[in-house]
Amino acid sequence: MQGKEIEKLTKIIAKLPALGSRSARRIVLQLLKKKETTMLPLIAALQEVADNVKKCPVCGNFDTAEPCSVCQDSARDRETVCVVQDVADLWAMERVGLYRGQYHVLGGILSALDGVTPDDLNIEGLFSRLSDGTIREIILALPATIDGQITAHYLLSRLKEFPVKVTTLAQGIPLGAELDYMDDGTIQLALSARKEL
Amino acid sequence: MQGKEIEKLTKIIAKLPALGSRSARRIVLQLLKKKETTMLPLIAALQEVADNVKKCPVCGNFDTAEPCSVCQDSARDRETVCVVQDVADLWAMERVGLYRGQYHVLGGILSALDGVTPDDLNIEGLFSRLSDGTIREIILALPATIDGQITAHYLLSRLKEFPVKVTTLAQGIPLGAELDYMDDGTIQLALSARKEL
Repeated sequence: MQGKEIEKLTKIIAKLPALGSRSARRIVLQLLKKKETTMLPLIAALQEVADNVKKCPVCGNFDTAEPCSVCQDSARDRETVCVVQDVADLWAMERVGLYRGQYHVLGGILSALDGVTPDDLNIEGLFSRLSDGTIREIILALPATIDGQITAHYLLSRLKEFPVKVTTLAQGIPLGAELDYMDDGTIQLALSARKEL
Repeated sequence: MQGKEIEKLTKIIAKLPALGSRSARRIVLQLLKKKETTMLPLIAALQEVADNVKKCPVCGNFDTAEPCSVCQDSARDRETVCVVQDVADLWAMERVGLYRGQYHVLGGILSALDGVTPDDLNIEGLFSRLSDGTIREIILALPATIDGQITAHYLLSRLKEFPVKVTTLAQGIPLGAELDYMDDGTIQLALSARKEL
């Protein structure tokens, strides 16, 4: 006997990533129980993000500033652009805090299975950023999957006409990993790319 | 380089049940990407629930009606009250659709560990509902845990002064379960409570 308002809210929440109808019901109940301390602050925070956060027209990041604060930051290197699949990857790079260059968010990767073609991605935007000659290095930080590597190859072939160095993230055994748990492909790759100490 | 608005929203979402900071980030990104189709409808649905849904003063259910639609439904049996721990349990019972009586939500169960005493629960509200003599049966649908059973025993002892029948949900092997995967206690209980066919 849930009211239709509760049902509607539960349905919207159930469609969010990592959630289902059961966890959505738990969340709605929690919100109802903690109206003042959780539900109202959540509504306010959502409204603020909806009102103020925009997609950066230069790199594709989400931010209140336009262009975003990364693109505007004069302390950051303007000669290097890190190409990522998604804003989540940009955030992951920023959490590490080591990279001080620019970004370019493709908004996806090429996929024959899902029918994603170059026209569906923000690739032309990358080329137009290259036109004034400031950028000297493109770091392809794309997923280490088949589709990610196909996208990297496509970008590499298209980038040949520009006078830029194209690099990619190193592949190998991740920190803290035990060999026993790594897949054969990664071990093979790490072996052939071994380094002298 | 997330804006403070995005960070604030992520923190609130990360504290909701079943979520953490990683899933909260995924949800926020999804909301940003699907602003028109998901974020704005979510804000509207939340606002509508916040504005209209109240706790029923009779049974403790959440609903737009006050008293709630279960309490108001004249087609439902007024002689039976099902006592549950939480509104989630009330919703679970209603999903089954078999029960046509009233409810009473305790808002928790007694717990020595968490320091929950009878005064913390909506127990007096149950007794005051019993005062006019309409109610003839109390079904204790409390968790089959130690704390749930302690709460059931406490209620049973207090209910002795009222002329009501007190029943509890049957315990045993759940439907579809394999014996091999059931705990010893459940098997013991199901065996001692076996029924002739």
